[in-house]
Amino acid sequence: MSLGLIFALLCAIVALGHGLTLVSWVLVQPRGNERMQQVAKTIWAGASAYLHRQYLTVTVVGLLMMAGLSHWFGVETGIGFLIGALLSGAAGYLGMQISVRANLRTAEAARKGVEPALQVALRGGAITGLLVIGLALLGVVGYYMILVPHDAGDIQGQMRALHALLGLAFGGSLSSIFARLGGGIFSKSADVGAAIVGKVEVDLREDDQRNPVAIADMIGDQVGDCAGMAADLFETYVLTLVASMLLGGLLLGDDGANAIVYPLLLGGISVLASAVGVFFVKIEPDDSRIMTALYKGTTASGVLAFIFFVPVTWMYLPATFTLQEVNAELSRWGVLGAAAVGLGLTGLMTVISEYYTGIDYAPVRSIAKASSTGHATNVIAGLGVSMRATAAPALVICVAIWAAHEMAGVYGIAIAATTMLSMTGIILALNSFGPIADSAAGIAEMAEMGDPVRAVTASLDAVGNSTKAMTKGFAIGSAGLVALVLFADFTYSLAAEGRRLSFTLDDPVVLIGLFIGGLVPYLFSAMALEAVGRTAAGLVEHMQAPDASRLVERLSTATIKEMLIPSLLPVAVPLAIGFGMQWLIGGDAGALALGGLLIGTIITGLFVALSMTLGGGAWDNAKQYIEAGHIGGKGGDAHAAAVTGDSVGDPYKDTAGSAVNPVIKLINIVALLMVPLL
Amino acid sequence: MSLGLIFALLCAIVALGHGLTLVSWVLVQPRGNERMQQVAKTIWAGASAYLHRQYLTVTVVGLLMMAGLSHWFGVETGIGFLIGALLSGAAGYLGMQISVRANLRTAEAARKGVEPALQVALRGGAITGLLVIGLALLGVVGYYMILVPHDAGDIQGQMRALHALLGLAFGGSLSSIFARLGGGIFSKSADVGAAIVGKVEVDLREDDQRNPVAIADMIGDQVGDCAGMAADLFETYVLTLVASMLLGGLLLGDDGANAIVYPLLLGGISVLASAVGVFFVKIEPDDSRIMTALYKGTTASGVLAFIFFVPVTWMYLPATFTLQEVNAELSRWGVLGAAAVGLGLTGLMTVISEYYTGIDYAPVRSIAKASSTGHATNVIAGLGVSMRATAAPALVICVAIWAAHEMAGVYGIAIAATTMLSMTGIILALNSFGPIADSAAGIAEMAEMGDPVRAVTASLDAVGNSTKAMTKGFAIGSAGLVALVLFADFTYSLAAEGRRLSFTLDDPVVLIGLFIGGLVPYLFSAMALEAVGRTAAGLVEHMQAPDASRLVERLSTATIKEMLIPSLLPVAVPLAIGFGMQWLIGGDAGALALGGLLIGTIITGLFVALSMTLGGGAWDNAKQYIEAGHIGGKGGDAHAAAVTGDSVGDPYKDTAGSAVNPVIKLINIVALLMVPLL
Repeated sequence: MSLGLIFALLCAIVALGHGLTLVSWVLVQPRGNERMQQVAKTIWAGASAYLHRQYLTVTVVGLLMMAGLSHWFGVETGIGFLIGALLSGAAGYLGMQISVRANLRTAEAARKGVEPALQVALRGGAITGLLVIGLALLGVVGYYMILVPHDAGDIQGQMRALHALLGLAFGGSLSSIFARLGGGIFSKSADVGAAIVGKVEVDLREDDQRNPVAIADMIGDQVGDCAGMAADLFETYVLTLVASMLLGGLLLGDDGANAIVYPLLLGGISVLASAVGVFFVKIEPDDSRIMTALYKGTTASGVLAFIFFVPVTWMYLPATFTLQEVNAELSRWGVLGAAAVGLGLTGLMTVISEYYTGIDYAPVRSIAKASSTGHATNVIAGLGVSMRATAAPALVICVAIWAAHEMAGVYGIAIAATTMLSMTGIILALNSFGPIADSAAGIAEMAEMGDPVRAVTASLDAVGNSTKAMTKGFAIGSAGLVALVLFADFTYSLAAEGRRLSFTLDDPVVLIGLFIGGLVPYLFSAMALEAVGRTAAGLVEHMQAPDASRLVERLSTATIKEMLIPSLLPVAVPLAIGFGMQWLIGGDAGALALGGLLIGTIITGLFVALSMTLGGGAWDNAKQYIEAGHIGGKGGDAHAAAVTGDSVGDPYKDTAGSAVNPVIKLINIVALLMVPLL
Repeated sequence: MSLGLIFALLCAIVALGHGLTLVSWVLVQPRGNERMQQVAKTIWAGASAYLHRQYLTVTVVGLLMMAGLSHWFGVETGIGFLIGALLSGAAGYLGMQISVRANLRTAEAARKGVEPALQVALRGGAITGLLVIGLALLGVVGYYMILVPHDAGDIQGQMRALHALLGLAFGGSLSSIFARLGGGIFSKSADVGAAIVGKVEVDLREDDQRNPVAIADMIGDQVGDCAGMAADLFETYVLTLVASMLLGGLLLGDDGANAIVYPLLLGGISVLASAVGVFFVKIEPDDSRIMTALYKGTTASGVLAFIFFVPVTWMYLPATFTLQEVNAELSRWGVLGAAAVGLGLTGLMTVISEYYTGIDYAPVRSIAKASSTGHATNVIAGLGVSMRATAAPALVICVAIWAAHEMAGVYGIAIAATTMLSMTGIILALNSFGPIADSAAGIAEMAEMGDPVRAVTASLDAVGNSTKAMTKGFAIGSAGLVALVLFADFTYSLAAEGRRLSFTLDDPVVLIGLFIGGLVPYLFSAMALEAVGRTAAGLVEHMQAPDASRLVERLSTATIKEMLIPSLLPVAVPLAIGFGMQWLIGGDAGALALGGLLIGTIITGLFVALSMTLGGGAWDNAKQYIEAGHIGGKGGDAHAAAVTGDSVGDPYKDTAGSAVNPVIKLINIVALLMVPLL
């Protein structure tokens, strides 16, 4: 048993332990009065009821998949799938359970000011971050230790183990796409429905408790932003680790054993650094912006992690080693440089996301200004911002690809992806802060806690919108790198089976793959948007029965029905293209088309996801900006237009846009699993 | 002098001659009363004034470009650029001049019923179709004959001539992007402005003559839909011919001389077939749908053209011949099969476009239905339809790529693109029918010609919306094929210079090219949407001075200012990437990144353009559907939401979406021109 693995396992356990101590800290905070607890309980009950139904559906689909995987790829892969699906589900469930408890306590702490409320919300978020990443690391390291009980050297056995881990990633991804999409449809149908109803019945405020759609909306936030995002980042994190381990094994030959474990060590260090980073988030009396405080925490985590990357790299990697297949010579310095690229990319994506979605910058204000001339100009401006917002992230990702590749070849891209994702702990903490703050604001509103409290929770809520957008920018940016690593895994897995294929742009089969791959994010997003549109319209039509529990019931049923087909799209398409083209053309056509499919999906997927998530965030905060009293303020014509924009942006960012991330990766995993069958 | 060239030249002259006889037919039709003429004159004066300013700007930019091209690539290329730019400008100008005369006569003919009005509008459209294609063919064949005055055999001299023709295509494309984007910004800013003003001042109908923005809107239709579309299709047509000729020369070695001329023959036959096809458009008493009549015309043109393709293919191509570079054996049958694929693709793209934008089908009705729950659900539904509408076209294009490649390799793709574009004559005729009908409806409204006349013009207008959407689907679908031909030209031009590069998906330089290429359509569309948003908002703010001529003046200035930077984006990006990567990395990096850029642009460009043009058409007709009395009819809440959707869809389809088409091709031409410099 390698020491490195034991170290990574210990890190996971420490993170979980620390998360649990934070749980007890949050739970002892005051819970507020009866009325607040009543609202919180309603939210909890609704979210739990929906999640139980969702998990039931996932279980049925999952058991079928598991049986298939066990049959074609062996029981180890099937069990891996089960572990991944269960842990992803647990991550989402835990995220929601913690959030619904922290929101109440955040609202109560807001009576004492911004700083106490921030601390409760932040620690609530940190719990989710630590538990999700702890579980992920525990799952990967633990299952790997079970699969490879004896020491290194046996590279064949390790490769078999990595394929079983691919099953684990598959389980996590499938579970995650259901959570993301289901949560997105549920939450945004409620949100859009609430906005429409709020507009139709002008007397009802969006968060008015007499408005049952408002309750459904708040339940949806837990289900989508907490459970959905936790499952999503669980999946991204697990998959990145597995993809990097696999690439190390495929490329590094005799040095492979250590290269396989190396990403786990980076992960272990980073989860501890994230735990420490949370303590760096403090608002000094002269801080005008909460975001600055949050940046401090992220920066601290990154710097701390990098400091410890150095000794681990020196202990675990030889001074120089050779990438087989590509025949490139790497050094420890190069790998460390690639690690720095990943951390730098995290920082840049965060800053760019904040610029495009932050209330203080030009993009959001341009949408707010356009609202003054009506609904249409608001929507046109929002679409313009959403498309323009893709430019800087895409360029930054290109620079990162180039830099990481210069320093350590394709393995460098894998390491950059790993260190980028190693920041998931702190990023998820900041993200989970978002729905807690959002929900606290809702409770403050519904329980009529008075204006001073509502001012505090509203300011936290606005920051939460930015952190949520940041997380999505981070997640999709990382997906860009991870997809390239997975593509490398795909090509080198084929090479390992003796099929060295050249995926060239002038091959019509590859081109067809590229076009169909490019289509998937479009078709998937269309399905997601239409699902929200249909469900929200159905909700509004049935508003005559203003009973929250029946509404949630109806919404749950509609959501489960709508989420199934789009969720299975990224599983069905690679199967159809791979086997279809193989059958139609023969030769290597199946594999070539699949290769094109993978790259085509990431190209359009990156732009679709970036434009939707950043554009949606900008629309959201343009409304907030107007509600803060600008351009006519709440209730004016500009506000009505901004509400329309926000309602469009909501499914854009939270249903379609953020679910494209798991779509890209699911397609890649399915393609990787198909390699031995082609 | 080859007989084939003389034949093609004669076809061009016959088409032009036939176009001129139609002009005289249209001009003798009754022009209606004083009031109608007044409205038409205002439109004509405004459109002319704007176009003069636009051409002035293009002239300045064009002369600079021409000087640069002459310097780097020789005077022949510079002169080619000038010819292309002039002819493209002439095509747009003619299209507008004919349209503003035909619209008045269509409105007058509508007094006698649908069939007479249809015939005037259709022949007006046919004039544009014939003149534009006649000019294009005349330009390409004529300049080629001047450049290669002596007979074949001298393949070197022919290749030099083809590079000069690339200059001609470049001139046409650059002129076209200005026309497309300028026309789009002008027309849609006016359109969006009119919708907003119409909504704000509820008493004013959209086409009310007291509303100066309504006048600007009608001027914009001429500038955008007539002049812009004519210039766009001129460019597409010329470029396809040149790209196919170039590929024939690059790949067919000793058989090259005939292969170079062969696409011109297909073009010559087709322009005559289009002229005949127009006569097949007749409404039988039992026809319930005008679209059926239009389909008859298109089908007749296609079938007729194909019948004559057979002897030309047998006369011009050897029984079998070899594609050098790829070393594939082709037959006449294969080439003819590829020709059929191109025609089939035209038919399929037409039908698919009609399904997604036609008033009788589910997509448009789903948007109309979603309007009943408000602005936001309308926009969400429209975005959903727009993204879903990309699926069928993309799949059909993939099938066409595969089929054409199976039958005649990469040359087959070129031939399929050529025959697809050979239908431009009849398609442009149907397209130009759209703005004529649109404008006739406006005149009928403003000149208060009474309800029966307005019913006739409104029904033609609704059909015009579908034909305009069809044309855009056709144009962007063909761009998918043409871009692949241009990519092949690019790689084989490099190979001809002794640089046989492999553009593989695991090369980070190619990947960076793909991502940056993918970014261009997004960034360009963002700029276009924001330009319309800004200009429309500016227009609404200055509505206090309700003087049509000052408004048009203001609009013209704003448009010219907004169109310059985005129009130059597709010229600047390939230069920056090609030379930048070359300088940064060296080796073949510049060429590899450029190759990635070309494919990246077509992948996202195809989806961006399809979703915007089809989605925009669907939004437009959803409004028409409600105005026809469904879901509350005109003036209801659903109608207000549908107006918002239409206002969003207008710049989506007519400014951003349709300008992506020339963007894709401009990038390809610039890359091709860069080959000797890299």
